[in-house]
Amino acid sequence: MGDLLKEEDLDHWRKTHNSSEISPAIGDREVVIMGWVSSVRDHGNIQFIILKDMAGETQVTAKKSEVGEQLFAMIKEVKEHSSICVKGKVRPQEKAPNGVEVVPTEIRAFSIAQKAAPFMTQGKTSPVGIDTRLDLRAVDLRRNYLGSVFRIRQTVLNSIREFLSRQQFMEVSTPKMIATATEGGAALFPIFYYDREAFLAQSPQLYKEQLTMAFENVFEIGPIFRAEPSRTNRHLSEATSIDVERAFADYNDVMSLLERMIVNIVDSIKERNKADLQFLEISIPALELPFPKYTYSDLIDKLQEAGERIQWGDDISPQALKSLSDERMNGFYFIVDWPASAKPFYVKPSSADPKISESFDLMFGPLEMSSGSTRINRKDQLVERMQKQGLKPESFDYHLRVFDYGMPPHAGFGMGLERLLMALVKIENIRDATFYPRDIDRLAP
Amino acid sequence: MGDLLKEEDLDHWRKTHNSSEISPAIGDREVVIMGWVSSVRDHGNIQFIILKDMAGETQVTAKKSEVGEQLFAMIKEVKEHSSICVKGKVRPQEKAPNGVEVVPTEIRAFSIAQKAAPFMTQGKTSPVGIDTRLDLRAVDLRRNYLGSVFRIRQTVLNSIREFLSRQQFMEVSTPKMIATATEGGAALFPIFYYDREAFLAQSPQLYKEQLTMAFENVFEIGPIFRAEPSRTNRHLSEATSIDVERAFADYNDVMSLLERMIVNIVDSIKERNKADLQFLEISIPALELPFPKYTYSDLIDKLQEAGERIQWGDDISPQALKSLSDERMNGFYFIVDWPASAKPFYVKPSSADPKISESFDLMFGPLEMSSGSTRINRKDQLVERMQKQGLKPESFDYHLRVFDYGMPPHAGFGMGLERLLMALVKIENIRDATFYPRDIDRLAP
Repeated sequence: MGDLLKEEDLDHWRKTHNSSEISPAIGDREVVIMGWVSSVRDHGNIQFIILKDMAGETQVTAKKSEVGEQLFAMIKEVKEHSSICVKGKVRPQEKAPNGVEVVPTEIRAFSIAQKAAPFMTQGKTSPVGIDTRLDLRAVDLRRNYLGSVFRIRQTVLNSIREFLSRQQFMEVSTPKMIATATEGGAALFPIFYYDREAFLAQSPQLYKEQLTMAFENVFEIGPIFRAEPSRTNRHLSEATSIDVERAFADYNDVMSLLERMIVNIVDSIKERNKADLQFLEISIPALELPFPKYTYSDLIDKLQEAGERIQWGDDISPQALKSLSDERMNGFYFIVDWPASAKPFYVKPSSADPKISESFDLMFGPLEMSSGSTRINRKDQLVERMQKQGLKPESFDYHLRVFDYGMPPHAGFGMGLERLLMALVKIENIRDATFYPRDIDRLAP
Repeated sequence: MGDLLKEEDLDHWRKTHNSSEISPAIGDREVVIMGWVSSVRDHGNIQFIILKDMAGETQVTAKKSEVGEQLFAMIKEVKEHSSICVKGKVRPQEKAPNGVEVVPTEIRAFSIAQKAAPFMTQGKTSPVGIDTRLDLRAVDLRRNYLGSVFRIRQTVLNSIREFLSRQQFMEVSTPKMIATATEGGAALFPIFYYDREAFLAQSPQLYKEQLTMAFENVFEIGPIFRAEPSRTNRHLSEATSIDVERAFADYNDVMSLLERMIVNIVDSIKERNKADLQFLEISIPALELPFPKYTYSDLIDKLQEAGERIQWGDDISPQALKSLSDERMNGFYFIVDWPASAKPFYVKPSSADPKISESFDLMFGPLEMSSGSTRINRKDQLVERMQKQGLKPESFDYHLRVFDYGMPPHAGFGMGLERLLMALVKIENIRDATFYPRDIDRLAP
């Protein structure tokens, strides 16, 4: 067993190039590259190392005759996943991924892997179960598949911020520790707040509504918390929510905003993540505006015609939607005008028919992506709706009191970032759409 | 008492122009503007309304002789803070803020204020106490002063994201519900996590370190939670943290990154918030790179010379720093090379002198803005430091285990967004640097 390769500190080393800069254009420059070893191939007197960094990968080729015995012996000791530094010369190599290889003149180890990882980093799928991967999530995130997923996530976030900035939205942060359940539901995580009980916010709903008073157009991208008791592939206990709220607008206005936002996201991914889409073997179909719209009542009629046992007022399940076999329901579409009784207290009933609400769900196939509505902006109407839903207006005093000062008409929506990523990148388990998932069974890492 | 002006729904109304578009350039077009009433002036047969929206303000001028008796009577009923819609014609008016006024042809009320606000929205200061304002925060946020503060906050956030994107950083989200205290300290909020105890994250520290394994350069802008028992003007129970972590870098590299980020923020504010800086009467001085650096040991010597009773190893208080009367300490500067014992377990001791750590605090005057360091990237060293600080390595198993797979050398920092805003905009109370502050006494709104 050799021990030529020893762990060293960064001290005298500085990275000069990222892998993306290692191309034929670079000439025969000397480079210092740093990263982790994604694969090692031993061909006797020639040794190949694939070094990965944030920008991609570089092939390091060491021939014994070329690098000398001592360096060759050190390179023979390199193990997968170790963090290393290679100094060397770039030369053309047709067979290498980026048309060049690095011939090493020095090698240093920063951190030598002590174990072999229980999964490979190449390839789209992993043969081990998701729990094995999640237990070593930081190592799991080195997989090419997840690299592509999270680079696309970055594009989604950037694209949303760019789009909403152009529409003059202000990005806000609302408190995650709150005194009262926003929507009166269960599924809240309680906190000890000094000497009091408090809860983690399930959504920024009431705060973003309030903020339209001062800033008109606001959005927040932040964590939301739901004590989901179920074990499914599409629920998380902690998720990232994209919350948008606009004054002087109704649900039709924000549906139009939302569908244009989605088109903008898809266009950005197609433009900025070509290599990722190719690796994932995904082609996102062109989207047409406006997205199809179905009223809740029409869908209930159709489902009854299709033989489903469903009544007006019931929720519409993913299973039921699948039974309709409507092609336009494979992509994005809206279900609008839900029963007022099915929606939270702050959703505005239609003036024409108060059984119906000015509300929508954005769907992708059978999966709910986003939910939005016109909101009630009058105090008396809001109090009445609270009472109808069994909530105590006294508990919402901190919210109701600002309605005395000219709350504008407003509308908005919330959308789960992870759900959206699942739809766009065809991720089977929502846990792979977030860095460190939380669910009823998992609190670490 | 008139009741000509009644609340209406948005239904048939659509805003055509923002106040920023109401300028002489618009000609004598008909416009529909919407917003809230920031002031009403009654001059008998002439009535002035200042209508505010997200983009600024517009003067609405109604002469009885010009608008007719009925409309004039309606306009007489308009109260401050009400949300209204005005249709009218634009005409030049030298005395109005933007050189034009709107002569109304129709007026509609969406939401009529029921009360007079306990404070004015104009002016930089407010005569009422901060608690009165915070109890009606959404109304308080209509004040010109806070409008400027939060528009500058927006610039700070945009500027950080732009800067870090150019440096190829990936934006990440790490869990806010965690199993173990990150730094072993007190000041944690406990949660009921299903059937277990958990905590709210004080910082994304260990997660962002792990993520450098996979993504090299990462940052997060998100909430952190600290059960601060003290009542001061510079602590919050929930704050926004800017966390940056970089692989293959040490504390000198990230200090350089941080100071360039600060310069970039200041340049962006000067460019994008001219009107806000003017209103706030703030001129941010030009910053020079590099920022001054003081070693901890040198500062202790200086403080002892200045007669302070302080020993090597003690923390340096804001009061002590003020006693040095060093002009370079009025702006941004670094205090570097803190005692290892004063820093958390993950901070790397210097190889030359293990009593010292590769660490820094970024200061602005006597106020700490940011804290950073080179981190330990070897498991055995990390375990040793945990034990020295009385922490149980077993509790950190979920973290330590990934160190078996080639953790790169890395360094980073965390910076409080609200603290930074306080420094840049000279905010006296940190509560005014956040939308809805949380502290030991306040959990609502």
